[in-house]
Amino acid sequence: TGRMGVIYDGNDAQFSSRIRAIFTMTGESDAGLSFGGSIRADNSQDGNRGTAGSVWVSGTYGKLEMGDAVSASESAVGDLPAVGYTDGGFAGDLEEISYLTGDGENLDQGPNILYTYTINNISLFASASDGSDRAWFTTTGDNDNVECTYDPVTGELIDCSTVSTDDTAWSVGANYEAENFTVGLGYAKSGDAEEIVLGGNTTFAGVKLSAVYADYQDRNSISFGGDDATGNFVDDLTLTSDNFELGKTWGLGAEWQQDALRVAAFYRRDELRVTDAGAALDLDDRDFDSFGVGADYDLGGGAVVSGGIVDSDWLNDTVADMGVKFKF
Amino acid sequence: TGRMGVIYDGNDAQFSSRIRAIFTMTGESDAGLSFGGSIRADNSQDGNRGTAGSVWVSGTYGKLEMGDAVSASESAVGDLPAVGYTDGGFAGDLEEISYLTGDGENLDQGPNILYTYTINNISLFASASDGSDRAWFTTTGDNDNVECTYDPVTGELIDCSTVSTDDTAWSVGANYEAENFTVGLGYAKSGDAEEIVLGGNTTFAGVKLSAVYADYQDRNSISFGGDDATGNFVDDLTLTSDNFELGKTWGLGAEWQQDALRVAAFYRRDELRVTDAGAALDLDDRDFDSFGVGADYDLGGGAVVSGGIVDSDWLNDTVADMGVKFKF
Amino acid sequence: TGRMGVIYDGNDAQFSSRIRAIFTMTGESDAGLSFGGSIRADNSQDGNRGTAGSVWVSGTYGKLEMGDAVSASESAVGDLPAVGYTDGGFAGDLEEISYLTGDGENLDQGPNILYTYTINNISLFASASDGSDRAWFTTTGDNDNVECTYDPVTGELIDCSTVSTDDTAWSVGANYEAENFTVGLGYAKSGDAEEIVLGGNTTFAGVKLSAVYADYQDRNSISFGGDDATGNFVDDLTLTSDNFELGKTWGLGAEWQQDALRVAAFYRRDELRVTDAGAALDLDDRDFDSFGVGADYDLGGGAVVSGGIVDSDWLNDTVADMGVKFKF
Repeated sequence: TGRMGVIYDGNDAQFSSRIRAIFTMTGESDAGLSFGGSIRADNSQDGNRGTAGSVWVSGTYGKLEMGDAVSASESAVGDLPAVGYTDGGFAGDLEEISYLTGDGENLDQGPNILYTYTINNISLFASASDGSDRAWFTTTGDNDNVECTYDPVTGELIDCSTVSTDDTAWSVGANYEAENFTVGLGYAKSGDAEEIVLGGNTTFAGVKLSAVYADYQDRNSISFGGDDATGNFVDDLTLTSDNFELGKTWGLGAEWQQDALRVAAFYRRDELRVTDAGAALDLDDRDFDSFGVGADYDLGGGAVVSGGIVDSDWLNDTVADMGVKFKF
Repeated sequence: TGRMGVIYDGNDAQFSSRIRAIFTMTGESDAGLSFGGSIRADNSQDGNRGTAGSVWVSGTYGKLEMGDAVSASESAVGDLPAVGYTDGGFAGDLEEISYLTGDGENLDQGPNILYTYTINNISLFASASDGSDRAWFTTTGDNDNVECTYDPVTGELIDCSTVSTDDTAWSVGANYEAENFTVGLGYAKSGDAEEIVLGGNTTFAGVKLSAVYADYQDRNSISFGGDDATGNFVDDLTLTSDNFELGKTWGLGAEWQQDALRVAAFYRRDELRVTDAGAALDLDDRDFDSFGVGADYDLGGGAVVSGGIVDSDWLNDTVADMGVKFKF
Repeated sequence: TGRMGVIYDGNDAQFSSRIRAIFTMTGESDAGLSFGGSIRADNSQDGNRGTAGSVWVSGTYGKLEMGDAVSASESAVGDLPAVGYTDGGFAGDLEEISYLTGDGENLDQGPNILYTYTINNISLFASASDGSDRAWFTTTGDNDNVECTYDPVTGELIDCSTVSTDDTAWSVGANYEAENFTVGLGYAKSGDAEEIVLGGNTTFAGVKLSAVYADYQDRNSISFGGDDATGNFVDDLTLTSDNFELGKTWGLGAEWQQDALRVAAFYRRDELRVTDAGAALDLDDRDFDSFGVGADYDLGGGAVVSGGIVDSDWLNDTVADMGVKFKF
């Protein structure tokens, strides 16, 4: 796939393009078990370690995927509609709900698994990391649970021991697909942090409406904005994950399609609670609102002209993109 | 593609081989607009950031390419003929004119664009960077225009501000292709530096003769030689880009082809002017001559046996290569 | 190719998966010379430098391969049978004989070559590095033979000189393939270190039996175990390559195949000799035994269910794996 166009970062219009080679492989055993995998060329080194792309087997008893899998929560509920030729990327993918586990999280423990089982209109999901970040042949790990002591004079190794353990990050979810609506529910846990997510969509008068509600406990590692070289909000230096934790996220989406034209919009609110440290500084809870709107025109043959605008409290300025995306 | 053989680096004969997987993708919209892109596996990570490979759209109104594009100058004029199975690589690609913009330059600002429009025998070219090296979602940048201050005691961020701006590096060019000759002209500007390039080729008595003349202003970042671990001329330590700037480059090429055999040669002179700093050291202007000759024999099926010799003032020793290159 | 499953590292059960895209390219010249190459996506950057994957030409006079080739010794004799869905990877590939040259060794000098010539039942092998680790255009090298002096006040370069030279690492080998047995012999030399390897296999009562015997001289860079974050045996800190050198390795293998089922096992002993430094510490020679057993069940279509167990003195604990490997 590829894309090319111009993004407006709030200060400058910038060229933004990319090209990716994606490899999708499938097979079938003699007894009819299907299996496959996919990896992009550009993250193939992580694919070789199991922390990018994934492999899967699928049969009567469901589908099991291993690698950089999404969580059960995300599988059951999903995200808000994306806008722009960079699919929301120009604004830091604010249409994506910040799921606690999977989809790039927990990969310090190596590959994750996702199990999916569908019966009639109901799909059940379960996902997990392996709970061990010990590096070993054929499986990566941050290995930050081992501490070694060295001779202060000679610098030689004296002893190593495991000083802490990792927790399995896991998630379960389910969704139900009716004729004119879909509803999903998910739960995830990673260390002390917890997540409950509820979402659904329905089509009404030709417009697909969607809603997501996520409630978090002890979700205290948040990154703020993508505003400049420092990655910080220069205007408000109290905004750090020491002072705030993510309490709730909820969002609404709408998509309208007619022939080659698609118009989409989303609204999202992230509710931040002050931590004890934040309260000690007399800080108050904060809400971050984000709003995006965009339009796509399908040229056929895999080419789509697209543009989007996003205005968000997470960003200092309103941002936009306009360009073409290709599927080939 | 692949290649294997032996290069002589002036001191040692060394094995030199490589293998590359190249992905070329194309498509066509319903209305007949063509689009495509290409990327190699080995630089696919940069392709994902828009700074390697490229994507393009092409229609009635010309072709627009974005990514690691060459400049308009280079498109209009081109380079001298390459020799050897490494296509001149064994001598540091001295057959390539050092174009001011494009082809790997200006990528600190993210992807570049190249626009091409051909009408009858005339092709027009325009290329540019976006003039912003601010890093942002979906577009890279060196981000070296932002300066932040930190609390000297706590180390905490106090403030950030944009302290300088980048210039758009741009180029325009044109060439004319007649029945038995081609002539091209290009101009480029990057910051204070400027480039005017003129070139052409004609076939005379079975020999294709080519010539390139480039004139530079304020071209003061030159790297000298590829001689050893230090990348410096060990014999003359005054040769640095503080003391010299590149004033002119001109070159001549000749290619003779008969059946499977091709013989090619090039001569090139780079004229260096002393800078004020160099003049203060009583240094004089310097010329660097390079001469290369080589022969190819096409085995058919994509395999070509090839060898080349290059003698250059940019290198301490005469170098050579001999091997096979494959297209598969 | 891909694989997914669970490995037991002696302490934890861990998910272990990977996915690889492999590109194999071939061609044929008009005169019938075949040529080709192969490279994986994940090590394509090294492939571009000639230190991963390889290219080859093959004709009446044998086959010449350049890149990350195996040694003549390894071509002639080979390794012990692999067990488990990670093909022995879960235990650090203890089924692989530690060949002195090729297969990832000597790549500090750039690409290696391997020449193979087969006449009737006899195959002859020769391999070599180029003996130069000087970095040069189109060929890599560690460049650690050059030493430069700098002005202690200004930091400017004064002079550079070549202070040492690299040795060509080379190997020769031969094997003979009879109706019901194969026997191979190899010799390799890299600097002061030497290797003599003898091996063979025969099929008896449906079981393929194999044996390898390797004798080393001055083989003094050994890495011990893969036990924890430090890569050292925490239990015995005298185990370093200062104190020990690898003297001998010998091993036995057995493989039994019936329909879709394959059962394989190997036993291996590495005999370590104390160095002078080790003797001064009153250390004794040490033997390291490794034993592995595994079973595969071929599901057809490229999917194989597989599991293995390895117990080795090189590892603190018995390790195991169980999973599926895919060819697609």
